[in-house]
Amino acid sequence: MTDETRSHSPPRNAFGRLIGMRIDDTAEGVCHSHLDTREDHFNPIGVMHGGVLFSLSDTSMGAAVYSLLGPDEICTTVEMKINFMRPVTKGRVECVTSVLRRGRTTAVLESKLICGEQLVAVALGTYAILPKPPEAP
Amino acid sequence: MTDETRSHSPPRNAFGRLIGMRIDDTAEGVCHSHLDTREDHFNPIGVMHGGVLFSLSDTSMGAAVYSLLGPDEICTTVEMKINFMRPVTKGRVECVTSVLRRGRTTAVLESKLICGEQLVAVALGTYAILPKPPEAP
Amino acid sequence: MTDETRSHSPPRNAFGRLIGMRIDDTAEGVCHSHLDTREDHFNPIGVMHGGVLFSLSDTSMGAAVYSLLGPDEICTTVEMKINFMRPVTKGRVECVTSVLRRGRTTAVLESKLICGEQLVAVALGTYAILPKPPEAP
Amino acid sequence: MTDETRSHSPPRNAFGRLIGMRIDDTAEGVCHSHLDTREDHFNPIGVMHGGVLFSLSDTSMGAAVYSLLGPDEICTTVEMKINFMRPVTKGRVECVTSVLRRGRTTAVLESKLICGEQLVAVALGTYAILPKPPEAP
Repeated sequence: MTDETRSHSPPRNAFGRLIGMRIDDTAEGVCHSHLDTREDHFNPIGVMHGGVLFSLSDTSMGAAVYSLLGPDEICTTVEMKINFMRPVTKGRVECVTSVLRRGRTTAVLESKLICGEQLVAVALGTYAILPKPPEAP
Repeated sequence: MTDETRSHSPPRNAFGRLIGMRIDDTAEGVCHSHLDTREDHFNPIGVMHGGVLFSLSDTSMGAAVYSLLGPDEICTTVEMKINFMRPVTKGRVECVTSVLRRGRTTAVLESKLICGEQLVAVALGTYAILPKPPEAP
Repeated sequence: MTDETRSHSPPRNAFGRLIGMRIDDTAEGVCHSHLDTREDHFNPIGVMHGGVLFSLSDTSMGAAVYSLLGPDEICTTVEMKINFMRPVTKGRVECVTSVLRRGRTTAVLESKLICGEQLVAVALGTYAILPKPPEAP
Repeated sequence: MTDETRSHSPPRNAFGRLIGMRIDDTAEGVCHSHLDTREDHFNPIGVMHGGVLFSLSDTSMGAAVYSLLGPDEICTTVEMKINFMRPVTKGRVECVTSVLRRGRTTAVLESKLICGEQLVAVALGTYAILPKPPEAP
């Protein structure tokens, strides 16, 4: 069974492909993902742009929520806050994301982003859980 | 005088180019920027990924802080929070960013992101102001 | 008609009384409120505790949302982020709060907190809009 | 040696006393604290005001940072974000706070707030570390 046939899988993520991130594993509200530093991830001062780390975390939070949804539900990001703690200049960034609370219409999640065994960023976000609209894929 | 020769200009932004954003104008703690929706900005549910809007805002906040810095200072993002209010599926996203407070070692900024005359996201962030390291470009 | 008989007014706020805050005016998604610095607002380093400013802002955001609700709706704080920009040591803190977006089940708001004509804090928060439970006052 | 004689202890916290919170233990960047629900903690819909939980967390983050500071340093809250996950209506709220990263001039912390074995709120905050001003107690 492919991703496309599982009714409650998240569909393909064009922006995730653009930045080169991969979801490694998602189950029961937890998601593991990663990306490898590329030169086009850099910001003007020569370190990974915060937007890359945010995007990795945001995509992973969405995947973690999806793992708890039924086939007729979708989720969207309400808001997210991220703290950047150390610069990333090379290597693999791993992201571990957990649902802290799934309510009926919202979920709260955290991500820890690690590079070279050091915590490089931490994020806390809120997602809305909605009925899947009829036209959704 | 080009950007490259002004000693306190932000250098080139590889990730900004990857997502196709443009800084239109930056002066005295205010930055105007934009990007045009592309298919590779989309997330799995067919709307612009939050990471694109975050990246536009984060880059713009950095540019707004730079406009207040001396030639021997740089800034980095400490943290940022963004609320997503309406989905973006097409057209131009404009971002208006202002420094709310510049202290000696930190700055606080907000961004409003607008598409089709509607507020689509709002962000509030904190930047650290640091002496430029000797090896910086 | 008193506050208590208007079916969609927020009921009395015990914690707001404890910290001495006042709602001055609330209409159409905007709330003006204030409090006067007291010694029991201070934190260990002799300035107003961030929790006082947070509480003023949170209560005001709730009041601003209430002004847009029907008689059968209530709201609760989902999350809030606040940046502290200048210390408050005396005088009146005024809080101006606006709903940036009211959706069907959530609202996004910002507060600006001012003391002595200076911006001392800014907050960005998310509220959930819910049907009033049968047992609510 | 009492708290008052240790040169780098946080001094007395008037607002913490107002809300009835207690620091139980602080060491090496971790703080345990609590408060017991009181009627004057309630917000208009009859649950603990978010400002009480914020204040407990903010005070605890400050104490956790202090445990890592030298005698000539102080800290102040730059910003904090808190998510409220379940209403608190009675009993003891316990708060476990950890420094995730102590840099030279900033620290990043998280708090988990628990009541009746359930996570009721989570917070993520940033503190500035500053030299103690000459006039500080």
